[in-house]
Amino acid sequence: MQSLFCPDAFLSPLEVEDAVRRALAEDFGRAGDITSIATVPEDAQGRTVVAARKAGTIAGLPLVAAAFRMLSPEMKLEAHERDGATVAAKTTLMTVTGQARAMLAAERTALNFVGLLSGTATATAEYVSRVAHTKARIICTRKTVPGLRALQKYAVRCGGGFNHRFGLDDAVLIKDNHIAVAGGIRPVLERAKYVIGHLVKIEIEVDSLEQLDDVLKVGLADAVLLDNMDVATMAEAVKMVGGRLTTEASGGITRDTVGRIAESGVDYISSGALTHSVTNLDIGLDIEI
Amino acid sequence: MQSLFCPDAFLSPLEVEDAVRRALAEDFGRAGDITSIATVPEDAQGRTVVAARKAGTIAGLPLVAAAFRMLSPEMKLEAHERDGATVAAKTTLMTVTGQARAMLAAERTALNFVGLLSGTATATAEYVSRVAHTKARIICTRKTVPGLRALQKYAVRCGGGFNHRFGLDDAVLIKDNHIAVAGGIRPVLERAKYVIGHLVKIEIEVDSLEQLDDVLKVGLADAVLLDNMDVATMAEAVKMVGGRLTTEASGGITRDTVGRIAESGVDYISSGALTHSVTNLDIGLDIEI
Amino acid sequence: MQSLFCPDAFLSPLEVEDAVRRALAEDFGRAGDITSIATVPEDAQGRTVVAARKAGTIAGLPLVAAAFRMLSPEMKLEAHERDGATVAAKTTLMTVTGQARAMLAAERTALNFVGLLSGTATATAEYVSRVAHTKARIICTRKTVPGLRALQKYAVRCGGGFNHRFGLDDAVLIKDNHIAVAGGIRPVLERAKYVIGHLVKIEIEVDSLEQLDDVLKVGLADAVLLDNMDVATMAEAVKMVGGRLTTEASGGITRDTVGRIAESGVDYISSGALTHSVTNLDIGLDIEI
Amino acid sequence: MQSLFCPDAFLSPLEVEDAVRRALAEDFGRAGDITSIATVPEDAQGRTVVAARKAGTIAGLPLVAAAFRMLSPEMKLEAHERDGATVAAKTTLMTVTGQARAMLAAERTALNFVGLLSGTATATAEYVSRVAHTKARIICTRKTVPGLRALQKYAVRCGGGFNHRFGLDDAVLIKDNHIAVAGGIRPVLERAKYVIGHLVKIEIEVDSLEQLDDVLKVGLADAVLLDNMDVATMAEAVKMVGGRLTTEASGGITRDTVGRIAESGVDYISSGALTHSVTNLDIGLDIEI
Amino acid sequence: MQSLFCPDAFLSPLEVEDAVRRALAEDFGRAGDITSIATVPEDAQGRTVVAARKAGTIAGLPLVAAAFRMLSPEMKLEAHERDGATVAAKTTLMTVTGQARAMLAAERTALNFVGLLSGTATATAEYVSRVAHTKARIICTRKTVPGLRALQKYAVRCGGGFNHRFGLDDAVLIKDNHIAVAGGIRPVLERAKYVIGHLVKIEIEVDSLEQLDDVLKVGLADAVLLDNMDVATMAEAVKMVGGRLTTEASGGITRDTVGRIAESGVDYISSGALTHSVTNLDIGLDIEI
Amino acid sequence: MQSLFCPDAFLSPLEVEDAVRRALAEDFGRAGDITSIATVPEDAQGRTVVAARKAGTIAGLPLVAAAFRMLSPEMKLEAHERDGATVAAKTTLMTVTGQARAMLAAERTALNFVGLLSGTATATAEYVSRVAHTKARIICTRKTVPGLRALQKYAVRCGGGFNHRFGLDDAVLIKDNHIAVAGGIRPVLERAKYVIGHLVKIEIEVDSLEQLDDVLKVGLADAVLLDNMDVATMAEAVKMVGGRLTTEASGGITRDTVGRIAESGVDYISSGALTHSVTNLDIGLDIEI
Repeated sequence: MQSLFCPDAFLSPLEVEDAVRRALAEDFGRAGDITSIATVPEDAQGRTVVAARKAGTIAGLPLVAAAFRMLSPEMKLEAHERDGATVAAKTTLMTVTGQARAMLAAERTALNFVGLLSGTATATAEYVSRVAHTKARIICTRKTVPGLRALQKYAVRCGGGFNHRFGLDDAVLIKDNHIAVAGGIRPVLERAKYVIGHLVKIEIEVDSLEQLDDVLKVGLADAVLLDNMDVATMAEAVKMVGGRLTTEASGGITRDTVGRIAESGVDYISSGALTHSVTNLDIGLDIEI
Repeated sequence: MQSLFCPDAFLSPLEVEDAVRRALAEDFGRAGDITSIATVPEDAQGRTVVAARKAGTIAGLPLVAAAFRMLSPEMKLEAHERDGATVAAKTTLMTVTGQARAMLAAERTALNFVGLLSGTATATAEYVSRVAHTKARIICTRKTVPGLRALQKYAVRCGGGFNHRFGLDDAVLIKDNHIAVAGGIRPVLERAKYVIGHLVKIEIEVDSLEQLDDVLKVGLADAVLLDNMDVATMAEAVKMVGGRLTTEASGGITRDTVGRIAESGVDYISSGALTHSVTNLDIGLDIEI
Repeated sequence: MQSLFCPDAFLSPLEVEDAVRRALAEDFGRAGDITSIATVPEDAQGRTVVAARKAGTIAGLPLVAAAFRMLSPEMKLEAHERDGATVAAKTTLMTVTGQARAMLAAERTALNFVGLLSGTATATAEYVSRVAHTKARIICTRKTVPGLRALQKYAVRCGGGFNHRFGLDDAVLIKDNHIAVAGGIRPVLERAKYVIGHLVKIEIEVDSLEQLDDVLKVGLADAVLLDNMDVATMAEAVKMVGGRLTTEASGGITRDTVGRIAESGVDYISSGALTHSVTNLDIGLDIEI
Repeated sequence: MQSLFCPDAFLSPLEVEDAVRRALAEDFGRAGDITSIATVPEDAQGRTVVAARKAGTIAGLPLVAAAFRMLSPEMKLEAHERDGATVAAKTTLMTVTGQARAMLAAERTALNFVGLLSGTATATAEYVSRVAHTKARIICTRKTVPGLRALQKYAVRCGGGFNHRFGLDDAVLIKDNHIAVAGGIRPVLERAKYVIGHLVKIEIEVDSLEQLDDVLKVGLADAVLLDNMDVATMAEAVKMVGGRLTTEASGGITRDTVGRIAESGVDYISSGALTHSVTNLDIGLDIEI
Repeated sequence: MQSLFCPDAFLSPLEVEDAVRRALAEDFGRAGDITSIATVPEDAQGRTVVAARKAGTIAGLPLVAAAFRMLSPEMKLEAHERDGATVAAKTTLMTVTGQARAMLAAERTALNFVGLLSGTATATAEYVSRVAHTKARIICTRKTVPGLRALQKYAVRCGGGFNHRFGLDDAVLIKDNHIAVAGGIRPVLERAKYVIGHLVKIEIEVDSLEQLDDVLKVGLADAVLLDNMDVATMAEAVKMVGGRLTTEASGGITRDTVGRIAESGVDYISSGALTHSVTNLDIGLDIEI
Repeated sequence: MQSLFCPDAFLSPLEVEDAVRRALAEDFGRAGDITSIATVPEDAQGRTVVAARKAGTIAGLPLVAAAFRMLSPEMKLEAHERDGATVAAKTTLMTVTGQARAMLAAERTALNFVGLLSGTATATAEYVSRVAHTKARIICTRKTVPGLRALQKYAVRCGGGFNHRFGLDDAVLIKDNHIAVAGGIRPVLERAKYVIGHLVKIEIEVDSLEQLDDVLKVGLADAVLLDNMDVATMAEAVKMVGGRLTTEASGGITRDTVGRIAESGVDYISSGALTHSVTNLDIGLDIEI
């Protein structure tokens, strides 16, 4: 079978397996799918069509496949699309044939993953399309659903976005509290630069052009997060930076404002809403037994 | 400290601990909060105010408390509200004093939980308010975020809603496929009734009054799910049932339609959107060190 | 290979795998089967016959298969019986061919499962046969061996019994303490009915006909547990209920008394002894290398 | 609080905690004790008396304590007995005061442990008393309930018995298959002796005096398992051994035969029934709220 | 108690707890410390002195504390040193008073951690001292002991070193295979730069000045790994780079060569040997009961 | 494929799988091998040669195989050597063909295992060769790397050594503290002998010939650990024992001294350094894509 993964997006097969196993266990409880065991013969075979009911960008097909295969390794899967595809309503994504009981038991787990992740991918793709006339990239944050960070970061990539930090440990992001405790922008940057590894980048949050000026003078940061600035100030900030640092706009980004913010010339626009909120994409699973 | 849990809502303290531990591990990766370790002295103390920035219904405070305490057992917490409270914007929910590093490290995990769950509680409360003039109850489904079912079910209760099945194993829900395979409504109900335990209820999905009539004639079901019916048909169905079964309306429920559907007289209205989609409630954490 | 599972009994393949993995780890410790590694060549092949040494009802063959396969995926299994079968002494249940070391290492784990679960199935079948002249069904309780509840519930089904609650969360069972705290039978039932989901049944325990009368008057329960009544009182209780509620007899049930209790007309008879006590069924594993 | 553990019996506090956590999770499912949450106020306090309803030997009190404390760390426990005590019917074992909901939720888990393990301890004590006039010791086997081996081995010690191997890895036990594959008693013993560590003992199973003679001639074993011999043969075997090896009688031991077998002079008598079968000891938990 | 952690080194308290729990479980097996249970009374108290028998740099004291506390929460600890301290032989590090059995049971686990990690810290400190006359920093690699990466990375910091990547996911490190598959240095760097997040740094390995020249021309890398170059070539490389990239020397670094390599002017020198090999520091635990 | 395991060495396939899964998860973090995903096409195939770069004794090939197979079950492996082989530098151990990305992602995990374990096997083989002219056996201790005990014990066997206790629970080892608390050598031995199982051996540590004499008089021990004696005293001790007990020399053993110590006639020589310290064997993985 062809790969179901989005090319260029980061997701390990072990993570897929773990996530699906936990989700099936959560849905099965102690007794499993009592309705299907009670009403469907053990040897009944079926055919399932997984299809997008609404248009959108797909993410999560490897988890759909894993849910079916984990309950019945003999399940046959045929993929019609792969993650990252933007499809019209009523597009068939995958067809599956095999044991009917396993299909029915896996259905909701499969849909919960692909609906959630495709929702994130679709929202991302919407943001991406609105900044397509600029060089700005859309990125996600650490405001993710607990337990699903790796999957949501992957879904953002499926939607054409890029990723910010995956956690507290893979980059330094200095915020107001860190600055205050350390005694100012220079000491905080010097201290961070001194302690961290040479492959760890430093970003620092500023909410005024004065702070930005200080950051530029110190010169140890790799990126600057322009927090909650209006578009004009943002544009001025980008001009001040002059390409010396990566610029990221953050705070209060919406579908309606993202385009204008991008026009300020920032490199990245981060949105917590892409992952802390979710609009499920309507994907259905039609089973014929 | 007074209880942070919503009275009458189901959530075990062991589940709280497990969920928070997994989420902290996910955010910490291998090295933990490198920014705070690099810039904040180990013995610095701080004070955190957890406050709702927008009005809404709160769910998740026990997880906030657990996140802080798991990183620093000496953390002192003072609760101003408990889960289930509906609060105005700018309401203080909790104040916390203790080690600054632990506060900064726990911040995002705490907010990801309370923002997500309060989002669900707030959406539920909105639905509930729109059916307040009827006897209908709002309920959630199994369309939940993988790994968070118990927490989301709890959040729905915090918002004044009630819970449908928690999983595949705690009630029978017969859908079209089960009916088709078993050879009709009578055989499927007889078969299910025969096999399941005496404390397991049976609900059956119908999408026409004809099907409903069959269900009523067989008489073994406890509840009937009226799937995707218009309001007039729904009202007719409720009349046909005449209190003999619990009635549940499902399919395409929105904030705008839920009130009219409730007026049909149904007992329960279930909405997947309450849990498969999430609008994070804006809750903030202000730390002073 | 044909299915090894009992039809109509609830057990998920993921539960089987988890249980066997934990049991093998418990038996292996850190070094595994040192006797066989020390004395049996790695490439030696063998043939194993799993047979019932005593007559009984079989439960646990999927766990036997999993134990062998987990240690050697190439193991070939041939099933002669499946779970739920009642067999005479000396009946061959399964034959297995493959790596001798893996057979020897899996032997005890496989037998511990199938002996324990077949013991439960056999005891259940005994009770079931003693009430066969009545409509009463034999059910188990939550008095199970810690860690093995799903498996024991399955074994009860293999023996022809049915299942009570699987845990604290899938039905309401109101006992004396709940009644006392809530202030009586009416308030406790009203309170429970108000809080729980529409697919959750309510059973209430009574130990006198007076209490039963109260329950019948309130009318919110689905089932009533008649606790420790003598047969005459039980029969009177059943008459009083008149089919309005499911009736369950509980307390001090033994092989000798179960038949007479069933003649009282109760719907269900629950026995903790079916699962809190175990008489292992003697099943043996003859290995030829 | 005084120790609840039986002196001289092996059980780690980490094992106690793990076992109780798993058992509570199994009983709680996703929603926990819905009956108590629905009917008992969160702040209601209670008092529980744990008492033996039948006479027996107690094992499992540390698990009772852990179950209560895990759900409510503030729970106050007062121990009246400790594991290993042999008590009359109606003996109070422990009193507990604290949150009523936590008591009700922990009740079944606590009782399932202490009933099962006290059952094993009581059965062991019975065997022990029947061989008290001899030097024979009663020991258990690896025929244990999957997942509970460490706990059952501990319970056997509480009952005055001793332990055989805890798993496949802590001693060598050579059976017929190993002898056959290795080509006889001498080669199998030489091979095992050569490979294993110097702190690993070797026991070998024989079912005839001829085999025993071979074992004695080779002289590398530490112990010999006399399998399924009648009492006269057993006595003859013991005489042949003359103290050079530890002798263990095994196979078909019952309460009725164990005394006579002991009189043969064997050092140890092992019984699978002590742990593969369980007669729960009736221990009750009376809660006053 | 004062903090035992090395300031500025990254290690989460949850990681400490997990690692110690796993290690105790590994050492306890099923029955725990049978020697101490058999020979030391349960209520015997003791006093333990943890002391360095050889001079070195200390890492691992939080794990020592966790091992004692996990077995007996009442254990009293007094710290005389903290991680990162360089001490003379016979320096007392910590004194512990409490239950003797718990001390004896925790001893080996505690020492295995502190001996291993102090060995790594001491080796690191040795390297660091040999480059002290230059600006070069000593760093570790991903060549770590499986399962102990976070702990070993922490130990390197305790010894005055710094950390390279913690895993495959927190920075890009392009090696010969990646260059070859992507079709050269320019395409591989362009491709990596395009795909990765803005807070992820890129390092590329070169083994000749020609390759380095290509890297400098493309200009997208943050750091360059100079692989297995002799000191003269290394110095030439550093000159070519002229501060535009971070430079890292790698390959065949030993205690004897590290000083001269540092004199080449490289920024970082990485050594797999710091973590893939271990010379345990001799730390002892004297218990008085 | 032929077996990769060392014959006669103890390691379970479940342990291999668990260890590799944990190590891959540790290296992958949340996003996996971002370098390879960014630069190597998903369908690129490759060929890997695993070869010893230095001469040594090999241990860990089953873990290498598991690392590749876990990421890509279709990976084809050809073994040229198996664990326990002593090979010259530049010996090819295994060739692997399959998905290039999976190879690159598994590389470091595979090498970390095989380098570490082969280091232990090689060090053991060195010690073994130095005592080859005597009957002494080289054994390891519980001074192992936390989390890797089973693997290191296996590696010692691969190098021709033997194993001491695997943990606290599989043999009794009485040290000075136990003797002191119990009130002397006779009471401690009597107490231990009384409590432990009949398949558990007892070793006792002595540091003088006087103590040894006491041990011999009591006569309940199976083995005696001669702690830190000089060679002459050791020889005298061996003479005193006269074959009545197994003798083990321990304390300050080095490559240089081990031969002379062996000549004292002791049965076993234990060395903590074999496992508490590690000199990684240089094994490389050449990938062609």
